[in-house]
Amino acid sequence: MNTTPEALISEAQRILLICHVNPDGDAIGSLLGMGWALRKMGKQCVLACSDPVPPTYHYLPGSETVTSEPQGSFDLVITLDASDLRRVGPVYTSLDLSGVPIINIDHHITNVGFGTVNLVDPQATSTAEVVLALLRRLGVELDQTIATCLLNGIVTDTRGFSTPNTTRRAMEAAITLMDAGAPLAKVTDQVFNRRPLAEVRLWAEALRTVRLEGPIIWAEITPAMRLACGFTDSGDAGLANFLITANEADIAVVFNQQADGKIDVGMRAVPGVDVSAVALEFGGGGHPQAAGFSINGSLPEVRERVIAALKQAWLEQNDSS
Amino acid sequence: MNTTPEALISEAQRILLICHVNPDGDAIGSLLGMGWALRKMGKQCVLACSDPVPPTYHYLPGSETVTSEPQGSFDLVITLDASDLRRVGPVYTSLDLSGVPIINIDHHITNVGFGTVNLVDPQATSTAEVVLALLRRLGVELDQTIATCLLNGIVTDTRGFSTPNTTRRAMEAAITLMDAGAPLAKVTDQVFNRRPLAEVRLWAEALRTVRLEGPIIWAEITPAMRLACGFTDSGDAGLANFLITANEADIAVVFNQQADGKIDVGMRAVPGVDVSAVALEFGGGGHPQAAGFSINGSLPEVRERVIAALKQAWLEQNDSS
Repeated sequence: MNTTPEALISEAQRILLICHVNPDGDAIGSLLGMGWALRKMGKQCVLACSDPVPPTYHYLPGSETVTSEPQGSFDLVITLDASDLRRVGPVYTSLDLSGVPIINIDHHITNVGFGTVNLVDPQATSTAEVVLALLRRLGVELDQTIATCLLNGIVTDTRGFSTPNTTRRAMEAAITLMDAGAPLAKVTDQVFNRRPLAEVRLWAEALRTVRLEGPIIWAEITPAMRLACGFTDSGDAGLANFLITANEADIAVVFNQQADGKIDVGMRAVPGVDVSAVALEFGGGGHPQAAGFSINGSLPEVRERVIAALKQAWLEQNDSS
Repeated sequence: MNTTPEALISEAQRILLICHVNPDGDAIGSLLGMGWALRKMGKQCVLACSDPVPPTYHYLPGSETVTSEPQGSFDLVITLDASDLRRVGPVYTSLDLSGVPIINIDHHITNVGFGTVNLVDPQATSTAEVVLALLRRLGVELDQTIATCLLNGIVTDTRGFSTPNTTRRAMEAAITLMDAGAPLAKVTDQVFNRRPLAEVRLWAEALRTVRLEGPIIWAEITPAMRLACGFTDSGDAGLANFLITANEADIAVVFNQQADGKIDVGMRAVPGVDVSAVALEFGGGGHPQAAGFSINGSLPEVRERVIAALKQAWLEQNDSS
């Protein structure tokens, strides 16, 4: 079948838009931006995600309309930022969508091309950029609402235009969205500069445990700390990303003990050092500069094993280079 | 006299370039970028600053050539990022430069126009952008060295394209510099994501003092903390900027006690709240969102007075709005 997104959208009346589970700022921004654009074209839209919209993105117009339980029938599905249909989770499988065409909009090189039409551009730094290109093809005039949602996607995935893959195209897309009224400073502030006081308190507790062992800086988070600070999230609150900024460290590790006793180990490395092999060794995964795994054991025992493995890896990498 | 920068530069053989005291990333980036461009034009250049180049900018090519004691005679002076000739400090007054023409390159609206030629553009987010426009006029071809220095200026003054005054022009200038080979990710990483371990340790100490009083979050830094952490700088290590990211706070204050007993008070406010009047009240100054002053007294006493004044200001501002 040789159809186009223009044709599928033109024929559709009621469209289901879905992004991936555990949505990030590009998933949510692309979902909302595409939704607003389709409504502008006179389409009925339902925006869905298997998980709730994170509070960080509640400022985006329409974020309150995203549902985990879409109702009714649809004549078109559009997926956003999902490399695989399984990545959208139960929200898709809970409906009878057999025979309903899918437009698959994404930028991940790992996208398996599950759509009736696949708009997958691995050169794009964000799915929001792919949506922007589609809106041009559809002749939708940008407005502040659409532009703000899409800029949220670009700012998230380029970490404020600071990732190595930030292209001139991403910058140009941002300019286009700013011209349409998207407030760059506000978007950046919302995406990166807002945190609950409990998180500040957790930093205070966890930073007290910081140690430097050779090239490795590490810190611990315990359930007791989370409790004392009123920190309800199970994540590391961005601590590993902060620790790797220390000039003296090539590797940063956060040992984040969970309520069930498991320890989430998050690792970061400076460019030129690779922590992904150690993550694999412990049954986890990730990228050279950011990897992790989950493991059973006491904090001191896990720490000793992991730091020994990281020291070994660091030595081997510095020998061969 | 109706001369042009092109004419002045064309006639000059040995040029003194100076930026302002306590140089930031735009001052240093513009100084170095302009210097490399003039050398490419066959000019002899001496780059000067009354204060040392901060370690953050040592990665920039040529940063080691910046001197606080320029020698010899010059037939042209170019100032960069200095709104007033006094802002360049003793490095200018120590030389006999009477009668030597000055090209004044800046972007501050407060620039007093002290140059023989004044290239002052308050619409520019950084002096680096003004330099870039001048290099176009001069026909200098950008290369990676020049471009990296200038991008350092733009990234610094826009805080990585996140300040409210980040214009499409700043973004376009960044694209031009990226096209010439400037590594945006590396520049951003160097400017914002590198800190000594001593600073991480100081955060750990200072964050333990964090308190929230109504809309005000505050923390203290003492000489004893600096000593314990091996933190040699007298600044607040970016702590006020971090504290204002707490959702619960409208105002953040860091009470930073110096070795001589004086207390540097740094204040931040969310958009819509203004702390500059309180700074003025205590003999300091600044902007609505970032202001400060220095004061004698004990920490508890100063804290009480300042927090009372801030609470009062906050109440008045929230009444009238």
